[in-house]
Amino acid sequence: MMFVHIIEMFVRQRGHLLCHFCRCTYELLMWFDPSVDVSPGSTSEIKHNLVEQIRLFIHKVTDPLHPKVNANRPQNVKSLSHPFSREKQHLYSVFYKYQPIGLIRSYFGEKVGLYFAWLGVYTQMLIPAAIIGVIVFLYGCATVDDNIPSMEICDPRNNITMCPLCDRACSYWKLVTACGTARASHLFDNPATVFFSIFMALWAVLFMEHWKRRQMRLNYVWDLMGFGEEEEVREPQRSGSDTSDVFICRKGPDRFFLFFLSKWSISVTFAIVFGVILYRISIKAALHISTYPAARSNIRATVKTTAAIINLIVIIILDEIYAAIARWLTILEVPKTDKSFEERLIFKTFILKFVNAFTPIVYLAFFRGRLVGRPGNYLYVVGSYRMEECAHAGCLMELCIQLCITMLGKQLIQNNLFEIGIPKLKKLLRKRKSEVTSLQEEEVKILKRYEKDHFLGPFAGINPEYMEMIIQFGMVTLFVASFPLAPLFALLNNIIEIRLDAKKFVMELRRPIAAKAKDIGIWYNLLRGLSKVAVIVNAFVIAFTSDFIPRLVYQYAYSPDSTMHGFVNHTLSYFNVSDFQKGTAPLEPMHLHYKVQICRYKDYREPPWSSTPYDLSKEFWAILAVRLAFVIVFQNVVMLMSDFVDWLIPDIPKDISLQIHKEKILMVELFMKEEQGKRLAVQDNHNQETCTIPSSDDQSPSRPRSHSVIHSKASW
Amino acid sequence: MMFVHIIEMFVRQRGHLLCHFCRCTYELLMWFDPSVDVSPGSTSEIKHNLVEQIRLFIHKVTDPLHPKVNANRPQNVKSLSHPFSREKQHLYSVFYKYQPIGLIRSYFGEKVGLYFAWLGVYTQMLIPAAIIGVIVFLYGCATVDDNIPSMEICDPRNNITMCPLCDRACSYWKLVTACGTARASHLFDNPATVFFSIFMALWAVLFMEHWKRRQMRLNYVWDLMGFGEEEEVREPQRSGSDTSDVFICRKGPDRFFLFFLSKWSISVTFAIVFGVILYRISIKAALHISTYPAARSNIRATVKTTAAIINLIVIIILDEIYAAIARWLTILEVPKTDKSFEERLIFKTFILKFVNAFTPIVYLAFFRGRLVGRPGNYLYVVGSYRMEECAHAGCLMELCIQLCITMLGKQLIQNNLFEIGIPKLKKLLRKRKSEVTSLQEEEVKILKRYEKDHFLGPFAGINPEYMEMIIQFGMVTLFVASFPLAPLFALLNNIIEIRLDAKKFVMELRRPIAAKAKDIGIWYNLLRGLSKVAVIVNAFVIAFTSDFIPRLVYQYAYSPDSTMHGFVNHTLSYFNVSDFQKGTAPLEPMHLHYKVQICRYKDYREPPWSSTPYDLSKEFWAILAVRLAFVIVFQNVVMLMSDFVDWLIPDIPKDISLQIHKEKILMVELFMKEEQGKRLAVQDNHNQETCTIPSSDDQSPSRPRSHSVIHSKASW
Repeated sequence: MMFVHIIEMFVRQRGHLLCHFCRCTYELLMWFDPSVDVSPGSTSEIKHNLVEQIRLFIHKVTDPLHPKVNANRPQNVKSLSHPFSREKQHLYSVFYKYQPIGLIRSYFGEKVGLYFAWLGVYTQMLIPAAIIGVIVFLYGCATVDDNIPSMEICDPRNNITMCPLCDRACSYWKLVTACGTARASHLFDNPATVFFSIFMALWAVLFMEHWKRRQMRLNYVWDLMGFGEEEEVREPQRSGSDTSDVFICRKGPDRFFLFFLSKWSISVTFAIVFGVILYRISIKAALHISTYPAARSNIRATVKTTAAIINLIVIIILDEIYAAIARWLTILEVPKTDKSFEERLIFKTFILKFVNAFTPIVYLAFFRGRLVGRPGNYLYVVGSYRMEECAHAGCLMELCIQLCITMLGKQLIQNNLFEIGIPKLKKLLRKRKSEVTSLQEEEVKILKRYEKDHFLGPFAGINPEYMEMIIQFGMVTLFVASFPLAPLFALLNNIIEIRLDAKKFVMELRRPIAAKAKDIGIWYNLLRGLSKVAVIVNAFVIAFTSDFIPRLVYQYAYSPDSTMHGFVNHTLSYFNVSDFQKGTAPLEPMHLHYKVQICRYKDYREPPWSSTPYDLSKEFWAILAVRLAFVIVFQNVVMLMSDFVDWLIPDIPKDISLQIHKEKILMVELFMKEEQGKRLAVQDNHNQETCTIPSSDDQSPSRPRSHSVIHSKASW
Repeated sequence: MMFVHIIEMFVRQRGHLLCHFCRCTYELLMWFDPSVDVSPGSTSEIKHNLVEQIRLFIHKVTDPLHPKVNANRPQNVKSLSHPFSREKQHLYSVFYKYQPIGLIRSYFGEKVGLYFAWLGVYTQMLIPAAIIGVIVFLYGCATVDDNIPSMEICDPRNNITMCPLCDRACSYWKLVTACGTARASHLFDNPATVFFSIFMALWAVLFMEHWKRRQMRLNYVWDLMGFGEEEEVREPQRSGSDTSDVFICRKGPDRFFLFFLSKWSISVTFAIVFGVILYRISIKAALHISTYPAARSNIRATVKTTAAIINLIVIIILDEIYAAIARWLTILEVPKTDKSFEERLIFKTFILKFVNAFTPIVYLAFFRGRLVGRPGNYLYVVGSYRMEECAHAGCLMELCIQLCITMLGKQLIQNNLFEIGIPKLKKLLRKRKSEVTSLQEEEVKILKRYEKDHFLGPFAGINPEYMEMIIQFGMVTLFVASFPLAPLFALLNNIIEIRLDAKKFVMELRRPIAAKAKDIGIWYNLLRGLSKVAVIVNAFVIAFTSDFIPRLVYQYAYSPDSTMHGFVNHTLSYFNVSDFQKGTAPLEPMHLHYKVQICRYKDYREPPWSSTPYDLSKEFWAILAVRLAFVIVFQNVVMLMSDFVDWLIPDIPKDISLQIHKEKILMVELFMKEEQGKRLAVQDNHNQETCTIPSSDDQSPSRPRSHSVIHSKASW
């Protein structure tokens, strides 16, 4: 009897880990071979036979973790690995099907189950976002020919001479040559983008709410309602299970050192971004100087694309380095518990990876083209490099290219190549190694399942998977104003990712020790934080990076006929070429075959003939005020709407809360009945003073736990 | 036996209401007469005597609610009413003492207990806010003589002629006459105010966090940890206990009607505020026209003060009307449960009272002086009334007066006069009435306690008390940038209020039916909402109502010597008196005894000699941009800091969470032991097959609830 108690206590305290294994094995057995009748009804007869029960229990615990699947089982029974079987066409043909979440939970435990459920909800929520994003993009495509500013730029009759884009090497150029860029910019910079930003901010809130409800439902179905956090923190020291093997028991290094280290990593990122900027500037100048006309014609495209690819490669390499740094820093900190170790590690990795992924994008969105100075008084960095300007139609186009390459490249290379390629490579190496230790092919074939599984790679936790998705969520929400196709790209990636991850977990890695979890933990907070930051970032992107506000102000305040005609002229300031600083005037002033006296540049400044030449004009300040006002209005309106949506949608689904309520009443009634029965029995004892043997039904429901209620629910 | 069960079930389902009464009576008995030894130890002996227990129980339930207090009890034993005894000096001499929260809870129930605890925490948190507020005010007082702008205004050598403040009746005036206002404005409009606004935003967050922790502690001490919300919602229909007696079972009226009604109430407020504005304008004009020089000299002060008092009276009257409207609207809606009725009523009352209290203040802070037009092109409302301008040094001064009068007046009149005076009056009336029904004085004296208590007023719920405090919290946080003494006023009011409320509840009203509650419910959400709105409102007050930003911009961008010298001149635009519209020029142009050609007015506009006379100048747009940028920075920085503070402070105090954890472990062990004991007993039965009578200690801890654990905790 004592033995059962100890096991029960153990099971209860360890978060039902072992018990979970039994149930999982049982459920999988049920799944694989439903002909075997092991239903609760039939087991209840052997329940009171305790010796049998213990034997069964020990058998279950010592069983191989991977269930022995009968090779010649009936064809109509599917296995968990069915959707991930080696046939390629299978993998990509099931993308429209729901995930077998219940099976995943049974096989891997709640923690991994929640990850897949979360990924499923995220992917599902991406569908409407992708559809609206495509519609917004198509709207841009449809209206590109009606767009007056780009028409004006492309019209050769507007004979506008622009100031040179670099010192000495570059010469004056015609605005009409920027026609292509201007038309392309309109695809991503139109009024629909503002609507889409608001939509995506609300989408993020809806996603969080939807996930909260789904999590609640899963909690209920998976019987995690009463599972407290306290049970997790009890571990006194992190055991090297999925963390590092090294166990440091000396005192942690001083905080200053750690602080310095993490700051150092972030500054490395900044330095690299700055390096890429310098690369872009210098290459551009070099290409301008070069005499090959072919190289010169597509200078911009070449520089942009190579810079973006360099950025991408740097990001991917630094990502791996940062993951190692974050782990090392966290180990140095010596956190007290497993949970705190994991949270700190996640937080550090998140900060580093986030900075890494978003620094080039933030630079493009908010700093590029802001700090260029003006003709005759340019801003120079590192000696004589002039800061980059944006293309005429704003930096949004370049931001867009950068986002596109980062998203596609990161997802294709990092996720699919690294995640699938490297485990496969490792598996191959491990097999080769074991072959060296002279295991014959035939021997391998007759090996048991769990022996074969030893060739698989070890399970490295699901945090890298989460991290990848959070960075993607950041890309989708943070800069959605500049790239409405981001949700579509994310959706396409996730449809593959969700199955690739599952396949990797089932086929390529050893089965992990099942871990119980009630929620997705710190990831939820990170998501919330991101969706809050997204509102502000989108407000700034619309107000400052896009030309939305200047267009609006021009139309309603400056335009003589309340149309966009003359907008391009309005955004260009005048520059007298005699005001060039010494040694910065173009070497070939006659490049356009006529003498230039006044050239134009994109800024709101006073003309040379005003009393304060080249000062910022009244229009600049007025537009700045409107931009800032837009940020305030956008941020507060979207935050208010988000809070309203948050308040409107109850966290617990109605049917679940009703069910919980019902069960509580049932519990109370059960307690009542039991107590009454007990007291009656006692009374009987008192009254009759006769010999009574407690009947078995008096004993079994001694302290009904929620399990029994859950089971009874099924029969309602 | 069945009887005990029914009572137990009843007790458990009714949220321990009755049980609570027993315990409360018991505790009060303990308090009033500790010589009677009714300790748990001695009661345990009679515990198994069930008949005795039931008798005691019935006795307790049917006992009068107000405990019979022995008249000649020992002097060293204090009663709950001791701090609120009729002697005035007592009432005001205990203000520095902590409240007897435990006793209040025992006597009134958890709901009222939480109100007093909350009020205590609020008052306590107001102390540092009041101290910092006074320091900020004193800083203003100390620096008023070093303030260059007010020195420049007061310097008669700066011979600045201002444009008339009203059409025809007013004439030109010297800026030096605004000296007093300018000096007074500096008291509330100095750089320390910005710091104080940030401090108060963080203070609000700290207050919420502090309250959350206190609530958690009270929940633990009062054994409410396991008290679920479900038990409250179970009431199928609101019983007219503390709500209205009328029970409407017809279908509610259509939503449109209700929506229209509430909108109508709010528009009444707006109409009245507009009426007061008109009053101010017309009175000012009338006083200007009047020939009495005495009336003319202090026109501004008279108008401001009378207007503020009119506003105050209107607010107080409307407050009572709105409370009735909100109740009527909620009854019309026919909510399903008590809880939903209460929440809807609170929400409606809050909206109406909030709009009522804050409309005049919001008008003063953000609209007054913005929409005045310019000399020669003023904005007219309702025929020929010109919109009001602010005094030269900004509207902050008037906002300050309004806030001061509203806070003081509302608190003095509404809280102290209404709350104390009216119950007393009602009591007197009720006594008079019962005297009419011929009850002799002697008869009254020999009446039982509960018969005497019938003369007291009925308990009307604690929601009006909460409402009052929330409106005050709004005053303290929302416009703290304009009135740093608000926390001090609130503190002084609350020190009295906390005792007056207690006295009222103990002495003037019938004892309420004790209600259980885990938290302060919707009030917490309203507080949270207010503290969020406060951040934005304060940002706007600093940016737009105060002169902080123009001063900053002048100092760093326009001042020739980076000091404030010349600031006053910079803020004043020029007006050529020949540009007055026909019929608006002053009737007495020679009022200052010289001919005026150019007068000045406070605005950033182009001078008459520029190419675009009277247009908004570049300075206006630049300052507007800086103001808006300040709002964005302030809002986001303060929100970030608030979130950080929120995240930094754990919601559950460390010692409480440790205690809870310990108790859980203890519980599990107890369960284990009990189960083991039971199984052993069963085994014994099986093995020996002899006659066993269950021993009493095996039966008593049949289902240990948290109570027993709590009791055992005391002995640790």
